[in-house]
Amino acid sequence: MSPSATGFGSPGTLARPTLLLDPSKANGNISRMVEKAKRSGVRLRPHFKTHQSADVGEWFREQGIVHITVSSVGMAKYFADHGWRDITIATLANTLELREIDALAERVRLGLVFDCAEIVTVFEKSLSNCVAGWIEVDTGYGRTGIPASNHEAVERVARAIVGAQMIDPAGLITHAGQIYSAGSPSAVLEIHAREVELLDDVRRCLRKDIGGSLEVSIGDTPSCSLVEKLSGADEIRPGNFIFYDLQQSSIGACDLDEIALSLACPVIGVYASRGQFAIYGGAAHLSKDSAVVQGKRVHGLATPLRTARWSIPSEWGFVEYVSQEVGIVSASRTLLSTISVGDVVGVLPAHACLTANLMRRFHLPDGGTAECMPIR
Amino acid sequence: MSPSATGFGSPGTLARPTLLLDPSKANGNISRMVEKAKRSGVRLRPHFKTHQSADVGEWFREQGIVHITVSSVGMAKYFADHGWRDITIATLANTLELREIDALAERVRLGLVFDCAEIVTVFEKSLSNCVAGWIEVDTGYGRTGIPASNHEAVERVARAIVGAQMIDPAGLITHAGQIYSAGSPSAVLEIHAREVELLDDVRRCLRKDIGGSLEVSIGDTPSCSLVEKLSGADEIRPGNFIFYDLQQSSIGACDLDEIALSLACPVIGVYASRGQFAIYGGAAHLSKDSAVVQGKRVHGLATPLRTARWSIPSEWGFVEYVSQEVGIVSASRTLLSTISVGDVVGVLPAHACLTANLMRRFHLPDGGTAECMPIR
Repeated sequence: MSPSATGFGSPGTLARPTLLLDPSKANGNISRMVEKAKRSGVRLRPHFKTHQSADVGEWFREQGIVHITVSSVGMAKYFADHGWRDITIATLANTLELREIDALAERVRLGLVFDCAEIVTVFEKSLSNCVAGWIEVDTGYGRTGIPASNHEAVERVARAIVGAQMIDPAGLITHAGQIYSAGSPSAVLEIHAREVELLDDVRRCLRKDIGGSLEVSIGDTPSCSLVEKLSGADEIRPGNFIFYDLQQSSIGACDLDEIALSLACPVIGVYASRGQFAIYGGAAHLSKDSAVVQGKRVHGLATPLRTARWSIPSEWGFVEYVSQEVGIVSASRTLLSTISVGDVVGVLPAHACLTANLMRRFHLPDGGTAECMPIR
Repeated sequence: MSPSATGFGSPGTLARPTLLLDPSKANGNISRMVEKAKRSGVRLRPHFKTHQSADVGEWFREQGIVHITVSSVGMAKYFADHGWRDITIATLANTLELREIDALAERVRLGLVFDCAEIVTVFEKSLSNCVAGWIEVDTGYGRTGIPASNHEAVERVARAIVGAQMIDPAGLITHAGQIYSAGSPSAVLEIHAREVELLDDVRRCLRKDIGGSLEVSIGDTPSCSLVEKLSGADEIRPGNFIFYDLQQSSIGACDLDEIALSLACPVIGVYASRGQFAIYGGAAHLSKDSAVVQGKRVHGLATPLRTARWSIPSEWGFVEYVSQEVGIVSASRTLLSTISVGDVVGVLPAHACLTANLMRRFHLPDGGTAECMPIR
């Protein structure tokens, strides 16, 4: 955390799109998930791709977190350099990065994910350091992993891992990404129940055939937020919950006042006749991702920003369109009458992970900043 | 251009998403636009937001370009630091950056864009260095600018500029961004013709009322690519044409083999039963933007990459889905049979500007790289 002479609210800081992070909201979000994990008797291995920041990582460490998830070898290396010693790379192990992975496994307990026996063999032949091997099961997302119904294929990968000297069998891992199109809390709960049921089935078959104790690792923010007590899994890997965003709130996974990020954007044009204003802040800052809020597809919700900490207004402007650097916000006549060129609005982002990935620096109310890992 | 010991095609370079730039395609694209501008008797002021790279900027300079467009004060400062002396910031002048703008105007001929007389006055009161003042006219995009039909409002801004000592009247500027939903070359030509007609109307009225010589500046890659001889404008500001992309090719503004960027992505999973493979490369590299190709909405077109320069295959895989780091590619059985885990595919991006903005480094066939401006 680098201290800064210019405070958070000084014009010098907010003259251009600036990503504000409210540590009290973020720490509250972390602490609620830590408590739920304890209550449920599951390991919380938060996904650090959401923030990609060693500084923010320390907030997790202060709440007792020692196991983390990342989405690339570069990210694993960055967090290893910042003292993290138990890291799962939750995307399929990339054979082209084998040497870097092996070097990393020398200094941290590294979890890798496989969905193909041949790739397990490639790693087994080349690794000189032990890793933990997870089998990815597809519980309906259709991205990567072995379909949960294909017990035979899961067993093939399991046997390859059990037979490998350099790969310790860890268990079954899944990401139920289909939950993001669930649309309602009850649908989230249904998908989650089905996910756990499918994994349980697969685990039972494996136990019968190859024995041993295999863990189950699941992880998506909506189900981890909405399920009261998580059962059926040994480990959860939510990431987004530290910040939350409009996609999460539209599913019902958070309230708007739990969203810990706001992009401060200068107002550069006001168009009363069409009920809109223009902000300096676009796809290069918020990303092109969107969420459906009150029936509108938006890239963010905007409100005038008066202080370093924002509060939730009775009415929002909708960021309906973004070009590379400019956003167009639709607002009621009442809201619009309070907006002038030169004002700064705060925008709650549709997708916090992609916004953080673009901005790569968090501004804190005390004038300090939290830095993200370098792009490459 | 920093030379590199590891060549472009070495596994060390291509083990993770790597943005390849073919300089012969890019320079061909530049040279065709330079020739067209000469033939049409218009000034070419290319938009540098597409590449944000001083190295790539030199390629333009070598072809005689001295006037450039950027989309932020930070970008103007970066290119000023790299020797560019005539820069238009083509987004509305941001009052909160007035001091930085003034400092910049001391060392470069700086063009600013206004659509409101009051903001002109704010700048006039504070500037200690002269700038060129453009009036933004909205010719149908509906983003920023004064609607072309509102001659009175245009005249108000024009009078404010003419009356200002620190702001030289430059003319009328527009960006016909609505052209991106045109869908066909003939629709592009229609929108362009209407744009020029509207601007001509506005200019005629202004000439009658306030006299003086006002230029017209237009700029979007589709019309600048498709119109044979550009008339009715004094200046064109296309940006994307140096790289082109799937959005441009789907409009008919370029051929696929003119696209100068390809994102090299390792294959990390193959799913023959569902006709798909997974790549390391997702929204964090390509952005979430998409284009419609052969009736499918895609984030990119993928083909096996064997050498540093790619050629256009008879058949593509469609990048149909991207999560933060992973992309899912749908492919025919024939194409799929040639793909294995550990291969590298090249992905032509849906939107080159946002891909470059995310990757911020171009890899060249000779093993060198071209760097982009720092994020902030």
